[in-house]
Amino acid sequence: MESPNPSTAGKPIRCKAAVCRKAGEPLAIEEINVDPPRAREARIRVICTSICNTDVSFWRMTSSPGGFFPRILGHEAVGVVESVGEGVTELKTGDTVVPVFLPDCGGECADCRSENSNLCSKLPFKLSPGMPRDGTSRFADLRGNVIHNFLSVSGFSEYTVVDVAHLTKVDSSAPPERACLLNCGIAAGVGAAWRKANVQKGSTVAIFGLGSIGLAVAEGARLCGAGRVIGIDAYPEKLEMAKKFGVTEFVNPVDCGDKSLSQVCHLKTPENFELELLCFRFSPFLLCLTKVCYQGWGKTIVLGVGGEGSEMKLKCMDVLQSGRTLTGALFGGLKPKTHIPILLQRYIHKELELDKFVTHEMEFEDINKAFDLLVEGKCLRCVIWLYRPDQSAACLMPRVV
Amino acid sequence: MESPNPSTAGKPIRCKAAVCRKAGEPLAIEEINVDPPRAREARIRVICTSICNTDVSFWRMTSSPGGFFPRILGHEAVGVVESVGEGVTELKTGDTVVPVFLPDCGGECADCRSENSNLCSKLPFKLSPGMPRDGTSRFADLRGNVIHNFLSVSGFSEYTVVDVAHLTKVDSSAPPERACLLNCGIAAGVGAAWRKANVQKGSTVAIFGLGSIGLAVAEGARLCGAGRVIGIDAYPEKLEMAKKFGVTEFVNPVDCGDKSLSQVCHLKTPENFELELLCFRFSPFLLCLTKVCYQGWGKTIVLGVGGEGSEMKLKCMDVLQSGRTLTGALFGGLKPKTHIPILLQRYIHKELELDKFVTHEMEFEDINKAFDLLVEGKCLRCVIWLYRPDQSAACLMPRVV
Ligand SMILES: [Zn+2]
Ligand SMILES: [Zn+2]
Ligand SMILES: [Zn+2]
Ligand SMILES: [Zn+2]
Repeated sequence: MESPNPSTAGKPIRCKAAVCRKAGEPLAIEEINVDPPRAREARIRVICTSICNTDVSFWRMTSSPGGFFPRILGHEAVGVVESVGEGVTELKTGDTVVPVFLPDCGGECADCRSENSNLCSKLPFKLSPGMPRDGTSRFADLRGNVIHNFLSVSGFSEYTVVDVAHLTKVDSSAPPERACLLNCGIAAGVGAAWRKANVQKGSTVAIFGLGSIGLAVAEGARLCGAGRVIGIDAYPEKLEMAKKFGVTEFVNPVDCGDKSLSQVCHLKTPENFELELLCFRFSPFLLCLTKVCYQGWGKTIVLGVGGEGSEMKLKCMDVLQSGRTLTGALFGGLKPKTHIPILLQRYIHKELELDKFVTHEMEFEDINKAFDLLVEGKCLRCVIWLYRPDQSAACLMPRVV
Repeated sequence: MESPNPSTAGKPIRCKAAVCRKAGEPLAIEEINVDPPRAREARIRVICTSICNTDVSFWRMTSSPGGFFPRILGHEAVGVVESVGEGVTELKTGDTVVPVFLPDCGGECADCRSENSNLCSKLPFKLSPGMPRDGTSRFADLRGNVIHNFLSVSGFSEYTVVDVAHLTKVDSSAPPERACLLNCGIAAGVGAAWRKANVQKGSTVAIFGLGSIGLAVAEGARLCGAGRVIGIDAYPEKLEMAKKFGVTEFVNPVDCGDKSLSQVCHLKTPENFELELLCFRFSPFLLCLTKVCYQGWGKTIVLGVGGEGSEMKLKCMDVLQSGRTLTGALFGGLKPKTHIPILLQRYIHKELELDKFVTHEMEFEDINKAFDLLVEGKCLRCVIWLYRPDQSAACLMPRVV
C-alpha cells in the first residue's frame, strides 16, 4: 500500500469525524483537527471501522464509565500509519495496523512477555476518555474545544492517533473490511474457544447467549473441531442464524419446563462427553452457570457481564466438590500483537470464517443507519468505510491545517 | 509380606474395633464381627491408620451428613488383603493396599479413564454410612446389631471390608506408617500443588490456612520448586512449624492494619512474580480470596470449606477483567490408583518428605488419647498401630466366628 503524504508529519490534520455530542443523539459528521502523534504514538488514516454493541452502549451512556461528550466513538478499526511520534521504531508510515482497545506493550512488562496473560501491567486497560499515557486527547473541534477519545481507538474519524501499545501491525494485503473484526468481540469469541478454553477435537461446548460474541465462540469451537455446540438463548429466532455458525443444538431456558437448564443440557449430551461452557451474558443464566459443564474438568469462561454491578454466588462446597473451573477473559485471552496476525492468516487461508459476521457495509456518511440497525438487532457487524485505498490519489491527500 | 491365614476366607472374622457409640463420647474398643467381602470387595487386615480432623468432625457430628452411630471411624489406613469377594481379579490375599475415601473404578467410567478428572461417575463419592455398592455395612456387634461404615474405609478396626474402587495396591516394602498419609489431606495438599495448580519452578504460592493440609500444600510447592511460599494464618504460633515446611513468609490477616490482605501479600512479592493461591479453609478469608493471586493467570484452588452452607460472592466484572481462575479439588485432584503409588515412590526416593507430618504414634488401645491431641491442636498426624507385621505369627491369626 502506498504511503500517505509524509508532508503532513508533525502538523495537525483537518479531516472528517463522526462526533457524538450528546448521549443517544445521532452522530454529527464534522470537520475536526487531529494533533500530530506524541511520543510512542502513531497517527493513522482509518480505512474502515466496524461497529459493535460497545459503541452503542457508550453512545447511550450518561454516567461512569461513559458519559464523556463530545466524543469520537468506534473501536473496531483498520488503518494505515500516516506518521509516528518520538521513539516509535516498530512502526513506520505506510504500515497497515489494527488498533485494539486492549494494550499490549510488546514485552516491556512481565505480563506481555508471558504467554499466560493478556493483561498488560505497564499500561493497564482502563476506560479513559484520553490517551493511555497522558490522559489527554488529540482531537479538537474547529473552535478548539477538546473532543474525547474512546477506548484508545476512536475509529469513526478519518484520522486518529493511537498509542503503539494499542496497535498491531498486520499484513497489508489482507482485506481491511475483515481485519477490522479482529480487535474486539469476534476475535474475543474465537479466542475464548481457541486459547482460553483450549477446545479439543470432539469436545462439547455450551454457549450462553447467541449474540455476535456467542456466534464467534461457535466459530472458534468449529475451528478447533468441537463435536457438539449447544446454543442457549431465550430468543428462538436466533436459532436459524446460529445454525450457520455451527451450533448443533439449541436450548431455550424458557422452555425447560420442570427440568433445570443444566438437566436439559445434560440430556442433549451423551453421559461422558467433555462439556466446556462459554458464556457471554450473565444475568438471565446466573444460577445455572457453572452447573452445565461437566464435573471434574468442565470450564466456565466469562466473556461479558449482564450489568455493571452483577454478582454471582457460589456455594463453597460446590466449588470444592465439582472440580469445575470458573474464569474470565478480556478479549478472549488473546494477546493482540501475537494473536491478531495469526487469526488474520487463518482467515486468509480460509480456515477462520469471518465473512459470515459482516451482515452490512456502509459509507461513512450513513453511520447513523448502522447504529439504527444494531439497536434493532438486525445486524451482526456493519463495516463503515472511511477511505477506500483504491480511490484516486487526490482523495487521499489530507489537508494540513 | 506373609499372607494372612487364608482359612478365614468366606467366613466372618471376630476382631477388635474402636466403636463410636455416641457423638463426642470416647471410642470403645470392642469385639465385633466382620462379614466376608461381597462381590467387588476385599477384606483387609489393617496395619495402621492415621487420624485427621475429618475423624474428629464426624465423631462430633449429630446430624447430616454425619450422625450415624454406632460407627467405626478412621479413613487413613494401610492394610493387607485377607481375602477377596467375587469378581475381584486386581487384588489377591497378601497384597498391601491403601484404602481411600475417594472412589476410582479403575477405568470402567470415562472420568476414571480421563487424565483430567478424579471424580468417578460409576460410583460417585458420597458420605454414606454403608458400602458404596449396596449401602449396607459389613460390621456388627456381638449382639448382631449393625455398626456403620465410615467414608468407605472404617480404619479403626483390626479388619475392615473395602470396595475395590476404594483400594489402591502399593509396594509392600514401603513403611505403612507413612503410606497411610497418602489417602487424605496430606496427599490432597501435595497433589493440589503438584497436579491441580501445576506449580512451576520459581513461582509464588500463597496458602490460606496453615493446618495439616496447608502445610502439605507447602510441601507440594517445595517439591515442585516454588520460589516463595506465603503462609496466611491468623495464629502466629503456627509460624515456627510452617517454616519447617518451607513457608518463606508469613502474613497474619489480623495484623494488616489499614491495608487489605491482598495489598500486604502483594508487598511481599516482587511486582511481576507469578502468584498461585491455594486455600483450605474459606470463612475468614472469603472476601480476599481470588484477589491475592496475580491477575491474568493466577489460580485460586479451594481444598476445603469453612462450613456446610458457606457461600462466596464474586463480582462478574472482576471475574471477566481479572482473568483469574477459581477452581476446587477433592483429594487435590489426585486419581487414587494412579497417583498414590507415584507419591509413595517419591517418598521412598526421599523427594517427598512425609516424616515431618507424623508428630505422634500410638498403640490401638490409646486411640482416645490421639483424639484428645487432635482436638487440642497439638498434633499434625498421629499414626495408630493396629497390627505390627513383625509380630509373631500366632498373633496374626484371626479368630473365625
Ligand atoms: Zn505490557
Ligand atoms: Zn467491539
Ligand atoms: Zn470411575
Ligand atoms: Zn483425613
